[in-house]
Amino acid sequence: MHHKYVHGYDPRENIRLQDQASTLVELLHSDTSYPPGSRVLEAGCGVGAQTIPLAQRSPNASITAVDISAASLAEAQAKVQAARMKNVQLLQADILSLPFEAASFDHLFVCFVLEHMKDPVEVLLGLKTMLKRGGSITVIEGDHGSAYFYPDSEAAHEAIQCQVELQRRAGGNAMIGRELYPLLKEAGYHSIRVSPRMVYVDASRPGLVEGFTKKTFTAMIEGVREPALKAGLIEAAVFDQGIKDLYRTTEADGVFCYTFFKGMALKS
Amino acid sequence: MHHKYVHGYDPRENIRLQDQASTLVELLHSDTSYPPGSRVLEAGCGVGAQTIPLAQRSPNASITAVDISAASLAEAQAKVQAARMKNVQLLQADILSLPFEAASFDHLFVCFVLEHMKDPVEVLLGLKTMLKRGGSITVIEGDHGSAYFYPDSEAAHEAIQCQVELQRRAGGNAMIGRELYPLLKEAGYHSIRVSPRMVYVDASRPGLVEGFTKKTFTAMIEGVREPALKAGLIEAAVFDQGIKDLYRTTEADGVFCYTFFKGMALKS
Repeated sequence: MHHKYVHGYDPRENIRLQDQASTLVELLHSDTSYPPGSRVLEAGCGVGAQTIPLAQRSPNASITAVDISAASLAEAQAKVQAARMKNVQLLQADILSLPFEAASFDHLFVCFVLEHMKDPVEVLLGLKTMLKRGGSITVIEGDHGSAYFYPDSEAAHEAIQCQVELQRRAGGNAMIGRELYPLLKEAGYHSIRVSPRMVYVDASRPGLVEGFTKKTFTAMIEGVREPALKAGLIEAAVFDQGIKDLYRTTEADGVFCYTFFKGMALKS
Repeated sequence: MHHKYVHGYDPRENIRLQDQASTLVELLHSDTSYPPGSRVLEAGCGVGAQTIPLAQRSPNASITAVDISAASLAEAQAKVQAARMKNVQLLQADILSLPFEAASFDHLFVCFVLEHMKDPVEVLLGLKTMLKRGGSITVIEGDHGSAYFYPDSEAAHEAIQCQVELQRRAGGNAMIGRELYPLLKEAGYHSIRVSPRMVYVDASRPGLVEGFTKKTFTAMIEGVREPALKAGLIEAAVFDQGIKDLYRTTEADGVFCYTFFKGMALKS
């Protein structure tokens, strides 16, 4: 499945994911901390963008982070070493057939993974077998349908829609954030609590203008220009206007909004 | 201008506004409280839906609430008396030509008003003359472009778009929430801080399912059926399907999202 990963694996993409992580760490991680001694599985750690903040907030938990891509794991390993984290173990594995015994973990953490999976409920069901009774799962996903901005722009919405459509064709769902509650419910988790984490950006928040609107969101949409044109999803001129209009929202009178969703639930 | 008020003035509409207010009070008002002795102007109080929570959170401030509609003020008066609020004075006035001397107020509060005005910057400029130096303005607005849901539905988006278009034709802007920062900036306010107030609704929050998704948002969209059909904005079957699909989001696996924006700023 990794060859279809819509964001690709090139080095610039890794920089984007790192920038995204550092700007959004507080918003996404502030309320996640695991008790000393607990065993935590991060399923689909990628280049480790979430692994470091996760491990830092739970310094005495034991974190096992798995990913299917050896190249991503090498990046993650470098990050773990640079951060001198002692509580992280990295392992190459497919989250659809994990090499662990049932009920091996106290907690599961899954961030920006389900959006790429053909059958997210299947993934959540499989993960549930890894979890002890009473253990928790935390799932974080974005939702590209939550992006709106000022000035509004039809071309920008069409450019964003290219990313949504390419991800759909690769078997994923770029608008999965809003679905966390029904997905966790269908997979049989209990005490489900979903909370939105909205990123609101105007000129009074220059760190988010740079770190989120420009370097995270717009950079991601810019990144699908070639495949979108190749697939005939959009005219080049419309796509380029859309990107221009997204940058326009980073000017002094512009506003950009995007929402991540964080779901927490228990296995009963 | 009041004859163009898109939500109308019938009694059921008042009930809707009351339901909306009681569900959303904490979300919108929790961080608004004015010091004892301060003079506060609520510009465009309508039927008083926000006036009571405003006055309750600032029991020793003196609140002057104005509206252009005598019928709305009568409703507001009844609410003020029923709540035994002693710190509210109601007054019929046009917020475009207020009968007060310059710099009469310490603080301004403007909720769900700018969305109906042809020139919101003109309104904000006029209000600024009512404000003492160092005084604050608080503005709250919704944004119908912030509504998204699961299951998604093109018909539902088209029905919502009818409300947006009717409000635009009446000289208003149903997507003004995202614009609070540039509007306050253009009107020359300082220290502007806008914070989104997102309403996230799933089946684990039954109060919001009833009080917000059904009785506030969907009821409001249902309310424009006749004018939307009369104006030829949409086919009846599509509109009705859209409403059905909005109710569909209130079932056990449904999700509904909407965001209000609250802007606070100072006069220097």
